[in-house]
Amino acid sequence: MKEKGILLIISGPSGSGKGTVVGELSKDVNYALSISATTRKPRPNEENGIHYFFKEKEEFKSMIENNQLLEYACFCDNYYGTPRDYVEGKLNEGLNVILEIEVQGTFQVKEKYPEAVLVFLVPPNIKELKSRLVGRGTEDVETINKRIKRALEEMEFLPKYDYVVINDEVDFAVTKIMAVVEAEKMKSFRHLSLMETFKGEI
Amino acid sequence: MKEKGILLIISGPSGSGKGTVVGELSKDVNYALSISATTRKPRPNEENGIHYFFKEKEEFKSMIENNQLLEYACFCDNYYGTPRDYVEGKLNEGLNVILEIEVQGTFQVKEKYPEAVLVFLVPPNIKELKSRLVGRGTEDVETINKRIKRALEEMEFLPKYDYVVINDEVDFAVTKIMAVVEAEKMKSFRHLSLMETFKGEI
Repeated sequence: MKEKGILLIISGPSGSGKGTVVGELSKDVNYALSISATTRKPRPNEENGIHYFFKEKEEFKSMIENNQLLEYACFCDNYYGTPRDYVEGKLNEGLNVILEIEVQGTFQVKEKYPEAVLVFLVPPNIKELKSRLVGRGTEDVETINKRIKRALEEMEFLPKYDYVVINDEVDFAVTKIMAVVEAEKMKSFRHLSLMETFKGEI
Repeated sequence: MKEKGILLIISGPSGSGKGTVVGELSKDVNYALSISATTRKPRPNEENGIHYFFKEKEEFKSMIENNQLLEYACFCDNYYGTPRDYVEGKLNEGLNVILEIEVQGTFQVKEKYPEAVLVFLVPPNIKELKSRLVGRGTEDVETINKRIKRALEEMEFLPKYDYVVINDEVDFAVTKIMAVVEAEKMKSFRHLSLMETFKGEI
């Protein structure tokens, strides 16, 4: 039997580079990105079951009621959520499933799935954070300052996560997250059956 | 300032191969083996401060009273223990300190030093355990069966450890333990000061 995968939640303040890190991590054959369900209409290049699971509002609401979502939220009149079935299927295949979500969603998932491993990705320092936010080149100074303030507020959630990964370089951050997952797989509560296995082998 | 090291306790049933694994791990420059204090007399090739810290019984008892030992036990009229000062000195140098100790000692240390990371090393299966115990070639069948029984009893402590490392091959086991230590260094409680650092950088 294949060992069950780890449900890995990756959050972090704006500018932490979580999108890039998650993108790299998901290239590894042992990792799968979760796919969100949404009531938003598909854009021309988006496919159902690949980019999102597109749902009607009524269907989404019934998923909420039937506890079929690990977390959900509503932005701009559209619902977004993480389908439990899809995640559990991948975990049972032995894949580690990555959820890149905001802090609010994180604690919803942790409540429904206490074995989830919570990783908080942070930029190495404020200078780097600023340069990443400026580097996008799409925002004015005021917007950037607002984002920095927001990022610092988000940092307050750090103690509620299991691990903090400092994203100095993408490759290093990916390696560090993989070490976390490897270590988590060795947690003793995942190996309680070993005692019985050994006794049975005598 | 150098990041403080991790106090790593490695235990495991007889035949788990912990001696070999600890020997390999301690060759890494980031790891240091703890040195025990003992009231046993030095053997001809043993040096104070390298193999053991040799102590008079009175001296050892005063170390117990003054809470200078992380754990201690008495075997065959001799005391053995782990000097807190030595361990903390190495941790403050940024080294990960390895304690290879029995289960009883493990929980004494955990009580005095709650941040200690507890690793339980186990053989991959009973067949391998038997062959390791037989392989020593020094014991008769009855003694070997007693040891297997003892090893199985020791397995009962598995749930009280943080991690279980299956020692299928020494090099793999060493790599796995290093991943545990790397992950432990990313635990959020070790990075709480980051929030203040970031705010101070603005």
